[in-house]
This record gives sequence, C-alpha cells and structure tokens, in this order.
Amino acid sequence: MDRRSFLKAGAVGAAASGALAAPAVLAQDKQVVRMVTTWPRNFPGLGTGAQRVADRITAVSGGRIEVKLFAAGELVPAFECFDAVATGAAEMYHGADYYWQGKHKGYNFFTAVPMGFTAQELQGWVHYGGGQELWDELGRNFGVKGFLAGNTGVQYGGWFRNPIMSLDDMKGLKMRMPGLGGEVLRQIGANAVALPGGEIFPALQAGTIDATEWVGPYNDMAFGFQNILKNYMYPGFHEPGSGLAVGMNLGWWEGLDAADQALIGACCTAENDVMMAEYTANNGPALDRLINEHGVTLHQFPDDVFKQIADASENVVAATAEDDDIGRRIYESYAAFRKLVAPVTQVSEEAYTMARAKALDL
Amino acid sequence: MDRRSFLKAGAVGAAASGALAAPAVLAQDKQVVRMVTTWPRNFPGLGTGAQRVADRITAVSGGRIEVKLFAAGELVPAFECFDAVATGAAEMYHGADYYWQGKHKGYNFFTAVPMGFTAQELQGWVHYGGGQELWDELGRNFGVKGFLAGNTGVQYGGWFRNPIMSLDDMKGLKMRMPGLGGEVLRQIGANAVALPGGEIFPALQAGTIDATEWVGPYNDMAFGFQNILKNYMYPGFHEPGSGLAVGMNLGWWEGLDAADQALIGACCTAENDVMMAEYTANNGPALDRLINEHGVTLHQFPDDVFKQIADASENVVAATAEDDDIGRRIYESYAAFRKLVAPVTQVSEEAYTMARAKALDL
Repeated sequence: MDRRSFLKAGAVGAAASGALAAPAVLAQDKQVVRMVTTWPRNFPGLGTGAQRVADRITAVSGGRIEVKLFAAGELVPAFECFDAVATGAAEMYHGADYYWQGKHKGYNFFTAVPMGFTAQELQGWVHYGGGQELWDELGRNFGVKGFLAGNTGVQYGGWFRNPIMSLDDMKGLKMRMPGLGGEVLRQIGANAVALPGGEIFPALQAGTIDATEWVGPYNDMAFGFQNILKNYMYPGFHEPGSGLAVGMNLGWWEGLDAADQALIGACCTAENDVMMAEYTANNGPALDRLINEHGVTLHQFPDDVFKQIADASENVVAATAEDDDIGRRIYESYAAFRKLVAPVTQVSEEAYTMARAKALDL
Repeated sequence: MDRRSFLKAGAVGAAASGALAAPAVLAQDKQVVRMVTTWPRNFPGLGTGAQRVADRITAVSGGRIEVKLFAAGELVPAFECFDAVATGAAEMYHGADYYWQGKHKGYNFFTAVPMGFTAQELQGWVHYGGGQELWDELGRNFGVKGFLAGNTGVQYGGWFRNPIMSLDDMKGLKMRMPGLGGEVLRQIGANAVALPGGEIFPALQAGTIDATEWVGPYNDMAFGFQNILKNYMYPGFHEPGSGLAVGMNLGWWEGLDAADQALIGACCTAENDVMMAEYTANNGPALDRLINEHGVTLHQFPDDVFKQIADASENVVAATAEDDDIGRRIYESYAAFRKLVAPVTQVSEEAYTMARAKALDL
C-alpha cells in the first residue's frame, strides 16, 4: 500500500468506525534482531519453537523487527547465550534458563525443579503467582529480561539397561542428568553426568554412561536411544514441565516502545501454548512407535523408589534458598504456590484423566 | 513521532542494523473493531480473558487496531454474538463455540465434549492434529474464522444437595447443564436444564433446579453456590478443558494483511496460555476457602457411576457425526487424536502428579 492509498483508506476506515481521522501511529524504523539459541537448528520442539518465536515476531511486525535466528554454535556456543545477550552481542536468546544456574540458582525455577510444577502450574505461577516479578528482579542483576516461551511438558524418567525396581538399582549407575536433578541422583548414590544432548548417544555406545534421560518420546526417539536401551521409565521426577525462555538484553528491551514490548510479549506467550501443543501431538505417535516398532518397554517407578527420590529432591531444591535474599524469596514463592495448586491439579486434570482411563478403552 | 523524524529514525536504524534503508512497512489506517462477548463484563477468567485479548490487540498494534469490547447484552445478547459477527454487525466475538451447536454440532468440539480433551490435549489437536483446518472449513459455511483464545481447564462435576453415590441418585434430578453434557444427563435419567450463568443462583434458591454445574472453584464461588449447596463433586465428565474462542467476520479477516492476521493470531494464542494461568492460580485459593470457610465437602464420583456416565457420553458425542460429512470428519479426527494422546497424558501429567501426591505432603 503506498502512502496515497494509505491516507485515503485511513480516512475512510476511521470515518466508518467513528474514530479519529489521524492514523494512530507511524511505523518505526526497521531493525534486525539477533536471536541466539541453545538448540540445534530446528531440533524438534525446542529448535522449531525458537524458530517460531523468531518468525512470529518478524511476521507480526510486518518485517519491521526482523529476528534472525542463530542455532547453537552458529554465533556463540549454546551455553554462552546468556552472556551474549547480557553483553549485547545478541539482542535475545531462546533457551532453558536453568542452564544459567551457575549465575544464580534461582534460574532453575523458571525452567523446572525436581518435584516441581507441571507446565500448567508453571504458567500459573509466572503469570499470576508472582513468578514474573521475581524473574524480572533476578534478571535486573544481569541485564536480562525473560519471558516464558515454550514448554516440553512432563519429562520421562529415562532410559535404562534394566528396569529400576529398587533404589539399589540406581546406586553406582552412571546416568546423564544435568542440574538439580543430577544433584538428586548423587544424593541417592548414582553417578550423575552432565552431557549436552548431542553427546549422549555416543556416550551410551561407548559405555561411558549406563543410562540417560533427555525429554520425552518425541525428542528421545529423534536421538535414537531406543537402539541401545529398551527400558523406559516414567514419570520423570526431575523436570515435570520444563519452561523455555526468551531472554533479552535489558537495555535493548527498555529502549523499545510499549507497543513493541507488547508485541514481543505476545509472541513469546503464544509460543508457550504452541510448543506444548507440538509435544502433545507428537509424543503420542512417538511412544506408540517406540513400543510397537522398537520393542521398548515402559515401566513406572515403584512408589517407594519415587518416594525416596522425591524426599532427596525436596532437600536439594530447598538448598537453593540458602545463598541470598532473592534466592530465598524465589524458593518460598515457588513452595507456597505449589502447596496451593497441587491439590487442585489432583482433583481436576489428574482425577479426570484417571477416571477417563478407567471408564473407557482408549 | 511526526513523519519527518520517522523517516530520519528509519534511515538511521536501518543503517545501524545493516538492513535496507527503506522502512519495511507503512503504518496502515487506524480502525476501531467491535468485539462482542458472551460474558458479563470482567467476569473472572472468561470476561477478564476477553478483555485481555481486546487490550492486547490494541496494545500490540500501538492503537492502530483498537478493539472495543461489548459485554453480553451491551451490543447484542450473549447468544447472538455468532450472528452479529457472521453478518458484520461486529468484527469479532469472544465466547464458547459450543453455544453455536444449533448452527452445527461440530462446534462442540472446539470448546469441549463429554469425556473429551483436556486443555493441553485440545491445543495439541487444534494446532497439530488437524483441528484448526476443520474449524476453518466449518467456519467458511457461516462466514466466521475462529481461533482458540482461552481455556478454563477441567470443569468440576457440580453442586448437589447430597453426594452422588450411585446412578440412582442422579435419576429425576433437575440439574443445570447445557449442551451435550445435558443430553448425557437425560440419557441417564436426570432432567437437564439449560440456564445462562446469571440465572442459576435464583433457580437454586427458588427450588426450580436441585443441582448445577458451572465451571470450577474460582468461578463457582463468584456465583455463591456454596451458600445453598454443600456437596461438590469431581471430576466433571462434561467439559474437561473448555476452549474459548475468538470468532471473526471472515470477510473482514480476509481483508487484513498478513501482518495484522499474524498479530491477531498471536494475541489469541497468547490468551490461550494466560487464561489457563489465571484459572490455575485462582482455583487453589478458591477451593481452599470453599472447604475451610464455607463448609463445602468435595466428593469424587464413584467409579461405576462415572463409567456409566462415560458410556452414555460416548454415544452422545458419536451421534454428532451423523448429520453430514464435515460433522463426521470432525468427530473422526477428534476420536483418532484422543486415542493417540490419552495414553500419553496418563504416563506423563497424570502419572507425575499422582506420584508427587503419594510421595509428598502437599
């Protein structure tokens, strides 16, 4: 549309709707925004989700804010995304904020902590339970502003040579699990190893590790773990709804006008919905194939094993509160919200899907 | 910003980021968009959600698309929203699409059907299971384009004088429940009554009805049912994750450029995430107050009662497929997706929250 037809259409449209004749805003300058990510390009769910956020911001702004995505290693290595954004080498990242727990342990809570929130509970806490405010306060210390922008849903308990029937089966096991989950494994006598996703399969082949977790059927099948290990345990205790984040350079963010801040916020929040949809739709077919084509057996952790892991988890997560005031307040806000929300999840989502499974042959 | 500084800033910004010197887009004409809704103004969750969609579109567009919200009855009555949008008397509505099942029974599936999808499963089906394409096809017959824009989560089984211990307790009961759920109640011998939300409390007071369902703790407490009935049953079979929709006049929608279509899509999808967060955060405190301040007792439907209701539900929902080709294809797509996704929900969200409840005192 050229300026002449724009003015004409503007006048007509405004007259028809009874609004002021003057256009409300003028388009701002175009900018190219660099988004670094912690994922391989288009890795299912995570990488595709990051790309969707980038493409959506570009599309909604009509190309005025063009977000150019750099996969892990293309501009900076995966684990340097936070520093790249904090220093302004990139304007934004898409990643999992618990990767920054070396900066502050509070970052774990905005992804997932052992025995913590499901996806639905996490978004409740962040949007309406004080989570966003604490995240913003934490981020100001580093010059980074974060938004939820994706979720994997409940992760699975992992891949094992033999099913885990007792806590003894975990002792001495060399298992890939990063972060607080790994710390829990160490507490119960396993050897937790932190490995990036791409190094897990070779490590299993070489026998460097005995067991691993990654995400769930859709993502795990993509890495091929079913070709080495046949016993798949559920549910995972370690990441019951891993939130992914867009983090932005705070100075850049604060330089945006209110409309562009709202635009980016909308695109991140939309992705929080869409990524969960991608996992939900794809985990079903993947689990079906794992079991029926790849001979994988799904086992549930015995109650007593899960109970001991859960108790260890509570201690590990509570210990994150000890370092400083903001860490204590994040933990306390999390714990209070979980206490209020968990009983409701039990009588709503959980009770319904249990009753549905008992009643119908699905 | 006037046009002169806009051009200057455009040139500087583009040069700094290495992009083309010309601004990517010109601002379009301002328009005022009328959003009618099926909710009372700012009714918790539903009305507040509709207002958030309206405000977000206005904010993201920098006021260029100003969405003016009309609550139920302000421009048209609640149940005339669809016709108002189809005829162009309003550009968009926010409502529950199963209110339009008189137009086509297929509309039930984009809100909720008995024994159907949870919120997470619904968004999986709509975004990645073929649901959006079927919805678009259905809508073209009426000149309406829909997007998911909110969810209540699993609704509760309802309020009763006495707890439901057997199917006999349901027989002859005059209970408020609209739509397909009401049809299921009739099949099992109850008298289902369809009443708008605002008429439920007076009907309970007058004894016109014996029992009612509405949404869940956050919404039900707002209507005050706890002042008349003290037995609250869970889980609801009738609406396990009610999706709310923005419906738009198709001609108006198709007249928007790609950027504005993306803008509105992002704002709707963002609200799908945020409304669920509002319910999740508020149901907990509400349920706590219902039980501890208002003396309400929460009861679970016995397995055999739920099984009989579930069987009746399957027949009622399947019967929606009989009318025409699009109805059959919507039902079949729904049924196939549920078959794939339900077992996964069981070993992920359900298994985790059950195990968490067993292991920890929350």
